[in-house]
Amino acid sequence: MKIIVIGAAGTIGRAVVERLGRHHDIIGAGRGSGEEQVAIEDYASVQALFARTGPVDGVVVAAGGLHIGPFSEMTPEQFQVGLHSKLLGQVHVALAAQHALNDGGSITLTSGIDAYHAIRHGANAMTVNLGLEGFVAGAALDLQRGLRINVVAPTVLTESVPLYGHLFPGFEPADAKRVAMAYQRSVDGPETGKVYRVY
Amino acid sequence: MKIIVIGAAGTIGRAVVERLGRHHDIIGAGRGSGEEQVAIEDYASVQALFARTGPVDGVVVAAGGLHIGPFSEMTPEQFQVGLHSKLLGQVHVALAAQHALNDGGSITLTSGIDAYHAIRHGANAMTVNLGLEGFVAGAALDLQRGLRINVVAPTVLTESVPLYGHLFPGFEPADAKRVAMAYQRSVDGPETGKVYRVY
Ligand SMILES: NC(=O)c1ccc[n+]([C@@H]2O[C@H](COP(=O)([O-])OP(=O)(O)OC[C@H]3O[C@@H](n4cnc5c(N)ncnc54)[C@H](OP(=O)(O)O)[C@@H]3O)[C@@H](O)[C@H]2O)c1
Ligand SMILES: NC(=O)c1ccc[n+]([C@@H]2O[C@H](COP(=O)([O-])OP(=O)(O)OC[C@H]3O[C@@H](n4cnc5c(N)ncnc54)[C@H](OP(=O)(O)O)[C@@H]3O)[C@@H](O)[C@H]2O)c1
Repeated sequence: MKIIVIGAAGTIGRAVVERLGRHHDIIGAGRGSGEEQVAIEDYASVQALFARTGPVDGVVVAAGGLHIGPFSEMTPEQFQVGLHSKLLGQVHVALAAQHALNDGGSITLTSGIDAYHAIRHGANAMTVNLGLEGFVAGAALDLQRGLRINVVAPTVLTESVPLYGHLFPGFEPADAKRVAMAYQRSVDGPETGKVYRVY
Repeated sequence: MKIIVIGAAGTIGRAVVERLGRHHDIIGAGRGSGEEQVAIEDYASVQALFARTGPVDGVVVAAGGLHIGPFSEMTPEQFQVGLHSKLLGQVHVALAAQHALNDGGSITLTSGIDAYHAIRHGANAMTVNLGLEGFVAGAALDLQRGLRINVVAPTVLTESVPLYGHLFPGFEPADAKRVAMAYQRSVDGPETGKVYRVY
């Protein structure tokens, strides 16, 4: 199958490409990296990506930014970072993908463990990651032509502990290799409207 | 205590004002109705509201719009309705309220049963309502000075069945009077970071 991976050069994306690439043709996309450039916050850019690739059988998103910071100092602009990038950005991909996917194709998004397991300074991250779970549950029931949509909720990655470990004290990390398996389940499995928790 | 109710003239708001008004001084606010005008999508308007009222002991929001419609025809602009109005609008109130509330004051927001119980054409509503639950869980852990934040998730109101009943086939409605009790629990009770489900 032909699968687009948005965020292919990232910590999660690289492992997803390695795993899915064993059996599928991968089109790697990123803001600046990969074969195709796209900015998920910009709907026209997402539509242009699908216009260039033509029909595909799956799209994976492992990209999107959040704001982490103390609520007492948070501004609406900071809160909008996660709403526009990780939440609306991934919604953009799903909205456009439903018109670009072959029958039975899949959409796989990324949330995070903090959807259900609180972190300090996480109001924006928790809104976005839990919101994405609501989105996938709702969109799955409406999708046509056997299209499927799921979301992977990883704990902090072992590879990301030097960067983000301080935000997740005592949280058990998971290797990117293990996290990538959940993306394969979504792409190659039969399910829709599911949250694959990797923790 | 002095409590602002945003959406005081609405189906939920009227019942909340009736109940909380027995023991508290209520300032009713709305887009066009009530003692004070505010548009929650506009952060400056929310800040101006608190500047006019001065310090208060609680704020309740029973307002905010959503987009309900088939995913196959949904546009990013339609999806943004819920993100900007019901989600970001209520976040605006919480962000501003934390600087305007007296110590120990409360913030009470409104989500809906479809956060967890899917409805047809509900991708936007489910994102927003579940996102609000993540928001409250996260913000509660960061709030200072004993401030509290909770969210009420009502089923469809008996009074709203003529308007919205077709979206909730077989869902048991609840009277506004009963829903208003959950708002009182949030305002007068000791809890924070809670979802009060009325269904
Ligand atoms: N790492 C973790 O521990 C972890 C755990 C749970 C959830 N997550 C979530 O997983 C996602 C990916 O995380 P990661 O750590 O793998 O990220 P990462 O290493 O920073 O890589 C991000 C990738 O996404 C691309 N990208 C960034 N912004 C983009 C945009 N607006 N449009 C299109 N592509 C964009 C980047 O392309 P360029 O390189 O070209 O800029 C890069 O390929 C994030 O949403 C994160 O919240 C991560
Ligand atoms: N009714 C239900 O069955 C039900 C069930 C679950 C959840 N909810 C949620 O509860 C909330 C209130 O619902 P409702 O049925 O009570 O609404 P409603 O009867 O339509 O009343 C809405 C109230 O909010 C005010 N308002 C609307 N938009 C506003 C804005 N942008 N800024 C400030 N105030 C605004 C209105 O003021 P004006 O009158 O001056 O315009 C009015 O007082 C909504 O978020 C809804 O999703 C409702």
